[in-house]
Amino acid sequence: MIGVAPRSTRSTTLSALAAYVGGSLRGGDVPITGVAGIREAEPGQITFVANPRYVPDLARTRASAVVIAKAHATSAIARIEVDDPYYAFSRIVRWFHERPYEPGGISPHASLAPDAAVGADPTIGPFVSVGCRARLGDRVTLLSGVSVGDDVAIGDDTVVYPNVTIREGSAIGRRVILHSGVVIGSDGFGFATRNGRHEKILQIGRVVIEDDVELGANVCVDRAALGVTLIKRGTKVDNLVQIAHNVVVGEDCLIVAQAGISGSSELGRGVVLAGQVGVVGHLRIGDGAIVGAQSGVASDLAGGQVVSGSPAIPHQTWLRVQATIPTLPEMRRALKRLEARVAELEQHSSGSS
Amino acid sequence: MIGVAPRSTRSTTLSALAAYVGGSLRGGDVPITGVAGIREAEPGQITFVANPRYVPDLARTRASAVVIAKAHATSAIARIEVDDPYYAFSRIVRWFHERPYEPGGISPHASLAPDAAVGADPTIGPFVSVGCRARLGDRVTLLSGVSVGDDVAIGDDTVVYPNVTIREGSAIGRRVILHSGVVIGSDGFGFATRNGRHEKILQIGRVVIEDDVELGANVCVDRAALGVTLIKRGTKVDNLVQIAHNVVVGEDCLIVAQAGISGSSELGRGVVLAGQVGVVGHLRIGDGAIVGAQSGVASDLAGGQVVSGSPAIPHQTWLRVQATIPTLPEMRRALKRLEARVAELEQHSSGSS
Amino acid sequence: MIGVAPRSTRSTTLSALAAYVGGSLRGGDVPITGVAGIREAEPGQITFVANPRYVPDLARTRASAVVIAKAHATSAIARIEVDDPYYAFSRIVRWFHERPYEPGGISPHASLAPDAAVGADPTIGPFVSVGCRARLGDRVTLLSGVSVGDDVAIGDDTVVYPNVTIREGSAIGRRVILHSGVVIGSDGFGFATRNGRHEKILQIGRVVIEDDVELGANVCVDRAALGVTLIKRGTKVDNLVQIAHNVVVGEDCLIVAQAGISGSSELGRGVVLAGQVGVVGHLRIGDGAIVGAQSGVASDLAGGQVVSGSPAIPHQTWLRVQATIPTLPEMRRALKRLEARVAELEQHSSGSS
Repeated sequence: MIGVAPRSTRSTTLSALAAYVGGSLRGGDVPITGVAGIREAEPGQITFVANPRYVPDLARTRASAVVIAKAHATSAIARIEVDDPYYAFSRIVRWFHERPYEPGGISPHASLAPDAAVGADPTIGPFVSVGCRARLGDRVTLLSGVSVGDDVAIGDDTVVYPNVTIREGSAIGRRVILHSGVVIGSDGFGFATRNGRHEKILQIGRVVIEDDVELGANVCVDRAALGVTLIKRGTKVDNLVQIAHNVVVGEDCLIVAQAGISGSSELGRGVVLAGQVGVVGHLRIGDGAIVGAQSGVASDLAGGQVVSGSPAIPHQTWLRVQATIPTLPEMRRALKRLEARVAELEQHSSGSS
Repeated sequence: MIGVAPRSTRSTTLSALAAYVGGSLRGGDVPITGVAGIREAEPGQITFVANPRYVPDLARTRASAVVIAKAHATSAIARIEVDDPYYAFSRIVRWFHERPYEPGGISPHASLAPDAAVGADPTIGPFVSVGCRARLGDRVTLLSGVSVGDDVAIGDDTVVYPNVTIREGSAIGRRVILHSGVVIGSDGFGFATRNGRHEKILQIGRVVIEDDVELGANVCVDRAALGVTLIKRGTKVDNLVQIAHNVVVGEDCLIVAQAGISGSSELGRGVVLAGQVGVVGHLRIGDGAIVGAQSGVASDLAGGQVVSGSPAIPHQTWLRVQATIPTLPEMRRALKRLEARVAELEQHSSGSS
Repeated sequence: MIGVAPRSTRSTTLSALAAYVGGSLRGGDVPITGVAGIREAEPGQITFVANPRYVPDLARTRASAVVIAKAHATSAIARIEVDDPYYAFSRIVRWFHERPYEPGGISPHASLAPDAAVGADPTIGPFVSVGCRARLGDRVTLLSGVSVGDDVAIGDDTVVYPNVTIREGSAIGRRVILHSGVVIGSDGFGFATRNGRHEKILQIGRVVIEDDVELGANVCVDRAALGVTLIKRGTKVDNLVQIAHNVVVGEDCLIVAQAGISGSSELGRGVVLAGQVGVVGHLRIGDGAIVGAQSGVASDLAGGQVVSGSPAIPHQTWLRVQATIPTLPEMRRALKRLEARVAELEQHSSGSS
């Protein structure tokens, strides 16, 4: 139903796979019946090495073949040499494990508003609720416990895993993947404080998620106060990320687990936020900027910048600072000693004058 | 049903709105048909400027009027001048978009224990489960997939969004808002370790959420080990916040996304924890204290303190420290150079003695 | 049903409890009707002091007795003196509040695949979905809104709280506790980037959770890309923790709220990650290592190490560094002053030569 077969039933040869991924066959042809990690692989399976850290495992793997960069290749094993082994292997995984979409139909335990529009070949599981005037594209998958609010639109081929909430008025693109526990369209955190009390500002905007976006488990995307919270095409978001009201995330960004983006900030295209990064509100991060893990971005970042730290500074500076940090207590003592030596010199000098 | 109309059907005049919010009409009266952000507004709409950062957008907005502080006002546009434009605008948003509560009734797909007590005019969606002896006030909204445990009490006019879990024995006040994915009353993280194994300490306490509290999406509030985990009146909590067992959060606090408060800590009234803050267990934070983003609070804080950093130090000190941090490698080099110069002076001095 | 009685109906004597926990009765025998925290206790109840911070409360408690270490005991109150008061009290809590499992049966509002296998004496709540070929052990509890995917296995006596999602193929051990909002088996965050676009790598592995593991509310455990994401026996995980694909967490670890472990990292036995810790991918943390709150682990840690900071350094070094940090601006000024003094000395010295 979801398009992944956990066990492959296909088989082929290493030479056929080499042709499929456009790589060079080395070390002889062998039959291949599946894929596996380098430590778990069994005879007949193909594995890969993308991270040099795992090259030593090649000597011990039981795999029959490996996808590898030429630079790391050894003659001990049949192999496909390619420029980008991670990408080539991912295509081989897909060849073995992807299966065509099979519609599961609409569960008798689902609750759809009479005026909800459902496209062709749906998969709607039990205990799914679909609100008034919602529009689902073709081949949409909504698994058990998903809540789709009034006036929500969901594009073709989108997959929504169990217990996701999509609040009223949200628009979800095509081929989007929403993992379990995602909340889209919850109210932004907006209050006007009067005499110490916080009065709620109605959040009347909405959320738009463009095509090919993937949101990890328990990700939150708040609806805009006014206007739109927007995640653009192709962006991938890891688990437990917070995206506040009126944020705009550009195309093809990667936002790693537990990062948070505060209200009204805008990310350009291809921005990378590593894990547990925080971005304060109302700022702009330019195209292709990269923010290191646990960093805090407190001011605008130009495109292409690589920063780390909280508050974030250029990554190269941060590396040098981090090398210095553990020496701080010694620096302080050295400074004290030096002060004493200078004082002595001064006394000596004034004595000698 | 929830009380927000995403599109307004009301219209009025700028002068009427000025009177409504107690502001000064400037630049002439105009008809007003709705509200919008300064960049998205269209003719007929009113917008606002509260953050000076957006003043330049005034020259380009298509809005017909703006709510603004006198200090930022320009004569280019009809306007309402007020002391607190954010608050005034929030009232105008409410005027256009708030609508009276309309009870949705009880879905035939809900499951209520026979001895659950439901108040007047409820809205209970499909796949809602309400446990034994639960008591719901009047006009309570429980949307699809909400789980209400045994012996839970929920006050009048409280709204619980889809897929929230309220565990047994919890007490929720009036006009509380619980966003999707909230978990109230999960077991606290309590173990007694014997011979390296962690034995669970039964968590037999409960959670009390007072009136007018709002909890963001996927917030967790653990039940007390013994006694009560308590969130007092008027406190607002953003998405993905962790509140551990036996924590007490005072009235009118603001706790921003992804912050976490460890067990048994107590926050006074009006405390602000910015995003991704961590508070260790068993400490007290006084009334009105403010903790900067990503900070770690490791000891008691007196009321009114403003702190930053991990571990947190006074904010003014932290600002000076942060200005120094990037210069650390240069400081270290300067220290080395100075040591060499002093050594030379000493040699010279001893030579000259 | 879940095995906890919020109010105790049992009563006993302090002498009987002293015998039960193997402690020394001091200050006379008294009847005991229940347990409570030191500040909330009423006459007839027993409380405890494990943290010296709460010793002063002993003078004011209304409890009739206390479980306490000999070192902290006062003669003002009847007591049980033990080596580990926290552990002894937890056993007393269990004596008063634990109750035998009572099967709740299968709700008529649950949806079980015809080929799902359910063990003896189940408790399956409303709106629970159980997929094809799923196998549930004896006395399994699945509360409202739980989603169990195809081919999932769940061991005897495991409790799954409302709105948990267990994706297809996951294996859950015996006596496991999964709190509300947990997501097990969501896709790992794996993409191969080509020409700036991120192509999804099918995540064909699975998740294995061993016996006696407890996962807090809204915890996410991603399925492996290939192979297995594994949490070993006895490990306890607090709320909102992220465990990425192919991570291995050893036995008897404690992972505190909002921590995150990146892909393919391996934790040994008895590792402690404090709150909001981040661990980067592909590294190893040895048995018994302890990582302080908000720290970032960026390289392998040997067993038994205690580290803090981001990036993490030995905890003792970190303490000294933190003591120095607030003095940095003064250090910088001191350095400038010293440079000026040395320059003057040099000038004097060259003048005097």
